[in-house]
Amino acid sequence: MKRSYNFSAGPAVLPEEVLQEAADEMLDYQGSGMSVMEMSHRSKEYDGIIKTAEADLRELMNIPDNYKVLFLQGGASQQFAMIPMNLMKNRVADYIVTGQWAKKAYQEAGIYGKANKIASSEDKMFSYIPDCSDLPISEDADYVYICENNTIYGTKFKKLPNTKGKVLVSDVSSCFLSEPVDVSQYGIIYGGVQKNVGPAGVVIVIIREDLISEDTLPGTPTMLKYKIHADAESLYNTPPAYGIYICGKVFKWIKKMGGLSAMKEYNEKKAKVLYDFLDESTVFSGTVVKEDRSLMNVTFVTKSEELNNKFVKEAKIAGFENLKGHRSVGGMRASIYNAMPIAGVEALVAFMKKFEEENA
Amino acid sequence: MKRSYNFSAGPAVLPEEVLQEAADEMLDYQGSGMSVMEMSHRSKEYDGIIKTAEADLRELMNIPDNYKVLFLQGGASQQFAMIPMNLMKNRVADYIVTGQWAKKAYQEAGIYGKANKIASSEDKMFSYIPDCSDLPISEDADYVYICENNTIYGTKFKKLPNTKGKVLVSDVSSCFLSEPVDVSQYGIIYGGVQKNVGPAGVVIVIIREDLISEDTLPGTPTMLKYKIHADAESLYNTPPAYGIYICGKVFKWIKKMGGLSAMKEYNEKKAKVLYDFLDESTVFSGTVVKEDRSLMNVTFVTKSEELNNKFVKEAKIAGFENLKGHRSVGGMRASIYNAMPIAGVEALVAFMKKFEEENA
Repeated sequence: MKRSYNFSAGPAVLPEEVLQEAADEMLDYQGSGMSVMEMSHRSKEYDGIIKTAEADLRELMNIPDNYKVLFLQGGASQQFAMIPMNLMKNRVADYIVTGQWAKKAYQEAGIYGKANKIASSEDKMFSYIPDCSDLPISEDADYVYICENNTIYGTKFKKLPNTKGKVLVSDVSSCFLSEPVDVSQYGIIYGGVQKNVGPAGVVIVIIREDLISEDTLPGTPTMLKYKIHADAESLYNTPPAYGIYICGKVFKWIKKMGGLSAMKEYNEKKAKVLYDFLDESTVFSGTVVKEDRSLMNVTFVTKSEELNNKFVKEAKIAGFENLKGHRSVGGMRASIYNAMPIAGVEALVAFMKKFEEENA
Repeated sequence: MKRSYNFSAGPAVLPEEVLQEAADEMLDYQGSGMSVMEMSHRSKEYDGIIKTAEADLRELMNIPDNYKVLFLQGGASQQFAMIPMNLMKNRVADYIVTGQWAKKAYQEAGIYGKANKIASSEDKMFSYIPDCSDLPISEDADYVYICENNTIYGTKFKKLPNTKGKVLVSDVSSCFLSEPVDVSQYGIIYGGVQKNVGPAGVVIVIIREDLISEDTLPGTPTMLKYKIHADAESLYNTPPAYGIYICGKVFKWIKKMGGLSAMKEYNEKKAKVLYDFLDESTVFSGTVVKEDRSLMNVTFVTKSEELNNKFVKEAKIAGFENLKGHRSVGGMRASIYNAMPIAGVEALVAFMKKFEEENA
């Protein structure tokens, strides 16, 4: 069996032992005589799986009791609509646009009300996080929205914006469970799981209870109402059951690794290996402002597009997969999520050094 | 390893060889060094998976070229909204209500326009399919909607309704790929895959191209527009990639079994074993009108709720799982989808005979 070093931005590398367990249980989950894929979502076995997953996530993130955890479908893209449809009581929301995903969320919100772009880093290709300490928050804003880690560009909010008392909504898809968070700072903190948590097809929404209400915008589909899913404990309809099961295994793995503080320490150590090399390299350089660098998505370039392409091609041959940058920006990107072992990053840096020597 | 006889209505039994293959490939899909769960949905490998799945489905169902195949999220429940949001140009649609799912679809459509219940079998607990040869189809109906196989009640349309030229939309979640269909009779034929095709979290929508347009109802979320997904070949955002991969394996399995004609023959043979016994039993009896019986979901009762409970309990101990009827109707239900081997049905009937003798 071959295992590549997979730097994909998502879907992305998962812990090998999680995959091994899933393989072992594929035909018979714990003596049930069924795969988890074959189980009624209303069975005792599955109830145990989803309840345990939620409990472990609550423990890992220290989620306060007045927050609901929802396992939903449709990814972050569907949340871009679900958030305004459920939260826009005044039909006003403020968006901080630090990348393509925040921009898409901002544009979608415009379908439902007045979406204000109160800050942006588009002027410099989203290569930094704007100062958010004193933004012109709208007086009647229903919420302030951010994308906390920008997968495509490799930036991250190191400090949450000052929302001046307004509800903060944050998309953490690409930094989910990568470090401790203070959930109480958010009204909604949510993410597609396919980067750091599990297989594509599950989005986890952690939402403060007072934001869940019957009072959604007219024309909101039943499936897009938080209250419907909250009241049914994510079982209003058949959930993406197998994906949730894998997420649950990843939660257990993170607990075993020492929880989110330990993950953060490990992620910092891993990222440092790569960033330190980028800072001293004569061929490669990072593309974003140092203080805003993401621990999860490391973006970099050589001096030419031609050399970038040569690097990606040779890296692939050497067993380093998915190092090509997002199609909208080019260059390179190494996504080094929780499950990427430090050995993978070290091997990549060794390969980059060799490439540097050969192409100086 | 234990394998139960799993009569769950969904998620439901999958072919054992499909599960075995998935287990074997879990850590390394065909030498890629990655699980399919870890693969970029924009990679060459994944492109091969989703394109092959679509091609095999097209071949199996003989889908005409002027139909798009979409792999979406949110299950049938989300289609209940997506269908009117995309198709209700006149804001009028006709619904034939033959069970809880058709009723939910009908109610959801009422959010967006005038939903007319043009026929129903609710008067007799949805135990039959109404005569649909000459219904009062609305002159300006954008479509006529049916749920073709009623999972909860165990009925199926043996003949499609006469829509008098209007577009037919059909939910085939629980009879998907159980027999040949003439796709050209439908405007949309769709189903959640978690009954007969794959793991929960994927819904397949087969839609005639002329029904796909930019012109959706105001306020339709981007993710709920068929055109967005059709234009992007189901890759507008990250799809439920692993689920689609399993569906693809099931398509291959059905092809190997001889295609939909062979599946139908096998399903008829299986269902006959159970229905024939129900018709002669002194303890058990079927709950629906004979000519409307489903090949997939066989509903039955004993003479008392007490005896029903006793049966379900003893059956479970004997290794027959999920025979309890839907919580809204009680009694028993044996879902005998494509992947249920005839040996499972024969074993169940043998067990029922024994139970009959003991409880005569």
